[in-house]
Amino acid sequence: MKRLLVIGIGAGDPDHLTLQAVKAIAATDVFFIVDKGETKHELVQLRLDLIAEHGRGPYRIAEARDPERDRASPAYTAAVEDWRSRRALACEALIRDELGPDETGAFLVWGDPAVYDSTLAILDEILRRGNVAFDVEAVPGISSVAALTARHRVGLTQVGRPTHLTTGRRLAERGPTADDVVVMLDAHCSFAGLDDFHIYWGAYLGTPDEILVSGPVAEVGDRIRELRDEARARKGWIMDTYLLRRIPAADH
Amino acid sequence: MKRLLVIGIGAGDPDHLTLQAVKAIAATDVFFIVDKGETKHELVQLRLDLIAEHGRGPYRIAEARDPERDRASPAYTAAVEDWRSRRALACEALIRDELGPDETGAFLVWGDPAVYDSTLAILDEILRRGNVAFDVEAVPGISSVAALTARHRVGLTQVGRPTHLTTGRRLAERGPTADDVVVMLDAHCSFAGLDDFHIYWGAYLGTPDEILVSGPVAEVGDRIRELRDEARARKGWIMDTYLLRRIPAADH
Repeated sequence: MKRLLVIGIGAGDPDHLTLQAVKAIAATDVFFIVDKGETKHELVQLRLDLIAEHGRGPYRIAEARDPERDRASPAYTAAVEDWRSRRALACEALIRDELGPDETGAFLVWGDPAVYDSTLAILDEILRRGNVAFDVEAVPGISSVAALTARHRVGLTQVGRPTHLTTGRRLAERGPTADDVVVMLDAHCSFAGLDDFHIYWGAYLGTPDEILVSGPVAEVGDRIRELRDEARARKGWIMDTYLLRRIPAADH
Repeated sequence: MKRLLVIGIGAGDPDHLTLQAVKAIAATDVFFIVDKGETKHELVQLRLDLIAEHGRGPYRIAEARDPERDRASPAYTAAVEDWRSRRALACEALIRDELGPDETGAFLVWGDPAVYDSTLAILDEILRRGNVAFDVEAVPGISSVAALTARHRVGLTQVGRPTHLTTGRRLAERGPTADDVVVMLDAHCSFAGLDDFHIYWGAYLGTPDEILVSGPVAEVGDRIRELRDEARARKGWIMDTYLLRRIPAADH
């Protein structure tokens, strides 16, 4: 049976790799790379560096081009699902044509395979379609959320309180739904105006370009927006995330 | 300056350690162990095994006894905060008396230091009190949530939807507040009756005793309760967590 590993490789620091991930990379015959395009080439290179360091030959690298996603569509979820289905077709072809019957293939995914990553769902979709059979194993990784809270040395959770994980889009639509909210995939600084909150923000976490800012939104919000715009213009891409924590009433 | 590392060591599998954690353990002069008592001795032993494997001598181990927590108190948050303050006193004494001026001390914490762990908050409290000064660094780890989703090969987040992290106590009080809810610290199987949900449950994640069950709550809820009671009686302790995911209306 073909075997597929979905390996979480952490948020950007090569030392975020777990021993389990190191062993999984060493056990891989074929690394699948579905390229998101030129703008994020640094991330592709970092992944190739990890393969070069921890891969145990002979291994092969099989690449496919990531389908374009319709970012103009107002129907966000439908657009993502359409993109995911086309991505599944590309991955199905790779697994069918490039992986031998008893070989192990691997997708190296940023962060943790369970956090806003589509690889596991895509493999499910391929299995449901039934054109190719394989076993799947996931290797957990350091998510950008874990990297963020570690760098800021703060808890994600507070005693007896819930923490909500959400997207920038939903934060903009609904506002903060808890006293502790982690926001991912926010291209529009949707924290603006949330002056009851403290923000712990980080970009390029774990890499040499890492930027960290924390403080009351009212005090540091503008600076985050400026730093974000400047870094994105300079590097051509940005990956960032943040934790919002409501400031206790007595403190403000 | 004294330096303190709070090192996430993963959910129970020694291979959950990151390369960063391995290096941090190797750089540690004094490991602080605050023992939770006899019932969880396996966990203490696992931690000692990690130190023995990755520590680079000469290192020392400094132990303190964890204060008792008033589990009968109806004021949960106040009881935890009282326990945390007494724990801070014990840790302050350890750091003051057992760590030299330019040495590195470490607390090895299960999972990720940011997820329902008190060590970072305790160190903040000690620093605020001002009797001893030190720098703090946190090393992110594989949380039981990441271990759970990897073992079940499911996403924690769904496209365009939030995920809520909460406790068993809050789930019992409020019910599920989202379509995707992770529940930790649930001693009472508060998922019972949530028949609109699929559950992905795991206990002793990453260890040889690991138990995994998934399915609609209506079908597997009773079995989880039985397995949980049996395992807890046999081993004397249990650590478990689960993800609830609302079953799409078309499917039930």
